[in-house]
Amino acid sequence: MKKFLLCTSLLSVIGSPLTFAMSESPTIAHSLVPKSAANGIAFPVNYQAWDTVSVSYREDNDTLRAIIGNPQAIKAIETGQTNPWPNGAVLGKLVWKAGQDAHWKAAKVPGKFIHAEFMFKDTTKWTDTKGWGWARWVGLEQVPFGKDAESAHRSCITCHAPVAGQDWVFTKPAVMPKRIQ
Amino acid sequence: MKKFLLCTSLLSVIGSPLTFAMSESPTIAHSLVPKSAANGIAFPVNYQAWDTVSVSYREDNDTLRAIIGNPQAIKAIETGQTNPWPNGAVLGKLVWKAGQDAHWKAAKVPGKFIHAEFMFKDTTKWTDTKGWGWARWVGLEQVPFGKDAESAHRSCITCHAPVAGQDWVFTKPAVMPKRIQ
Repeated sequence: MKKFLLCTSLLSVIGSPLTFAMSESPTIAHSLVPKSAANGIAFPVNYQAWDTVSVSYREDNDTLRAIIGNPQAIKAIETGQTNPWPNGAVLGKLVWKAGQDAHWKAAKVPGKFIHAEFMFKDTTKWTDTKGWGWARWVGLEQVPFGKDAESAHRSCITCHAPVAGQDWVFTKPAVMPKRIQ
Repeated sequence: MKKFLLCTSLLSVIGSPLTFAMSESPTIAHSLVPKSAANGIAFPVNYQAWDTVSVSYREDNDTLRAIIGNPQAIKAIETGQTNPWPNGAVLGKLVWKAGQDAHWKAAKVPGKFIHAEFMFKDTTKWTDTKGWGWARWVGLEQVPFGKDAESAHRSCITCHAPVAGQDWVFTKPAVMPKRIQ
């Protein structure tokens, strides 16, 4: 946050109309937003406010995952529109190396944060990549994954090939009580 | 939703001022809200909109969990105020029996929904139960857990005894990238 505070302080001193506009708008400091993915997908800055879609634990690489969805994805789940998912839906997966809970030895709990990865559905834009834009940001610094768009896409799609029949998405939304509001 | 629609239809026919008030306010049908817990805690109707705090997998009973927090809990995490947690913080845990992913055999994924359970921090109200109000709603129908408040509280607190030193909370918030907005 320091960089942003410095930036707004300077603008306050200058006293330009922009100062007022910035103080009234959501305070996103662009210098703090991770770089866009190699395929041009912008970092989804608000993903931590998205709702839970599912969770998973992979025994093969000992990782835990929280699967989240943007509002369009949640609406799609509630209306059963998940094969295919509608354009605008975005699914995210937060991945941690698993560790052992200090007070409940049989519980696997998140350790080191590995990456956040996303699938952005847009069949008009992503005609060559199964209708999805794929993106991953690595580590707590959220560094874009892959040396170029083509290799990053290929890596994602190759792994997702077993679920081509369910719109390339592994996650089946977890069954949970209906929302009341 | 049917019961609620019937209710508003009847009111429309009657044409009372209440009809207008109901149509302008958020449409929560009280007949659809699960019963309060035996200790009087009201069902937190909007919990599915809460943010991710952590995830876990328990090998001893083969269950997966999503741990979520209300806005006060999330703010507490961001400011490092989690031992003790501040009054107003609520932590929720959604629990599923684990199953095997159909397309990735080494992945544990949610099966049957078991329950949603919550801890409501209020040291002025819950002086006899470690500063927390404890509540659980079972199954997709969200039936309050326990035959009475005393036995339900005792059940929760007994299990949480190993973490008395961390304000009775098992969950350590998962490390994840800082929020940008």
